[in-house]
Amino acid sequence: MAPPVPGRRSADSTEDARVARTRADVGRAALQVLTEESWDAITHAHVADVAGYSKTTLYTHWPSRLDLVTIALDAVGEMPHLEPTGELRTDLIAELTAFRRAVSDYKLDRILIVLAQWGVTVDEIRRIRERLVTEGERPLRSMLATVAQGPSFDAAVSMLSGVVVCATLMWDELPSDEVIAAAVDIVLDGV
Amino acid sequence: MAPPVPGRRSADSTEDARVARTRADVGRAALQVLTEESWDAITHAHVADVAGYSKTTLYTHWPSRLDLVTIALDAVGEMPHLEPTGELRTDLIAELTAFRRAVSDYKLDRILIVLAQWGVTVDEIRRIRERLVTEGERPLRSMLATVAQGPSFDAAVSMLSGVVVCATLMWDELPSDEVIAAAVDIVLDGV
Repeated sequence: MAPPVPGRRSADSTEDARVARTRADVGRAALQVLTEESWDAITHAHVADVAGYSKTTLYTHWPSRLDLVTIALDAVGEMPHLEPTGELRTDLIAELTAFRRAVSDYKLDRILIVLAQWGVTVDEIRRIRERLVTEGERPLRSMLATVAQGPSFDAAVSMLSGVVVCATLMWDELPSDEVIAAAVDIVLDGV
Repeated sequence: MAPPVPGRRSADSTEDARVARTRADVGRAALQVLTEESWDAITHAHVADVAGYSKTTLYTHWPSRLDLVTIALDAVGEMPHLEPTGELRTDLIAELTAFRRAVSDYKLDRILIVLAQWGVTVDEIRRIRERLVTEGERPLRSMLATVAQGPSFDAAVSMLSGVVVCATLMWDELPSDEVIAAAVDIVLDGV
């Protein structure tokens, strides 16, 4: 990154702040369209309309539909991160509870479904999905790495993600606090 | 059911067999369109084309698009059922292995994704999904009911389904034999 140029800093900061705000607004609008409408509804015209910006502004900063999807997923990335306490059971429960909240607040399940549908055929979507899942699973993986290895580790990661994702995908229901706690206890006793 | 009418039985059986064959052919074609193309591609004209029947035949037996989706999912229902051995660990591993095969052979993950996408807004699809998931989970649920109750039971069902579904949904990968066995061991030791 280039060092700040004296005298231009303030103008740049204003400019940067404006672009960042536009990016956040457009990203949220694109995310809303993606989760509440559909993949096909992600067009510059429609997202501009929902975000309250001109189509030209969108084309200038994010020329392709994939760019719009990318900043939509960046809006997901703004999910709050938890400070681990160091107590594994507590931290795993907190992590799954945060995951559940992401599904209800950010419709993360819809996003995974859209990405799964398109990731199979579109390489760029596949990469976006891999990044999202990698980032999303990182805390869970690092916690579980302290108690499991090899196939047990892979199984434990899928099972704990599954307790949130499966209920949603198969039943359109979120797991209760009791079910999340039971899942963590099963994994901690079983590995 | 009415008793068979003497003298008409043979003609009826021939008719029944023909309709059953058409239904199976059209169901498989509709399933193929649903999993390899998209929901939107399920039209009478296109499914008739893929199945090698006339559009009129399809409209006569299955007037709505939902009828086509329903027989497509009936084609999934033809999955082989396993004979339980009575040894829980063996049977759970066999069940998850069959589930994994259903995902790879019948693209069950695509079907769940399509149903999840539409089930939220279309009541009839929601019911189809509930029936499919209920039927699909029945063996797993009855096996796990012998070792877990309450939240532990719900968690175990989601976790074992999750070991197959999550890897597919998030990573587009199927779990290995070792990961399936590890998941079953974690659940059996943990509940």
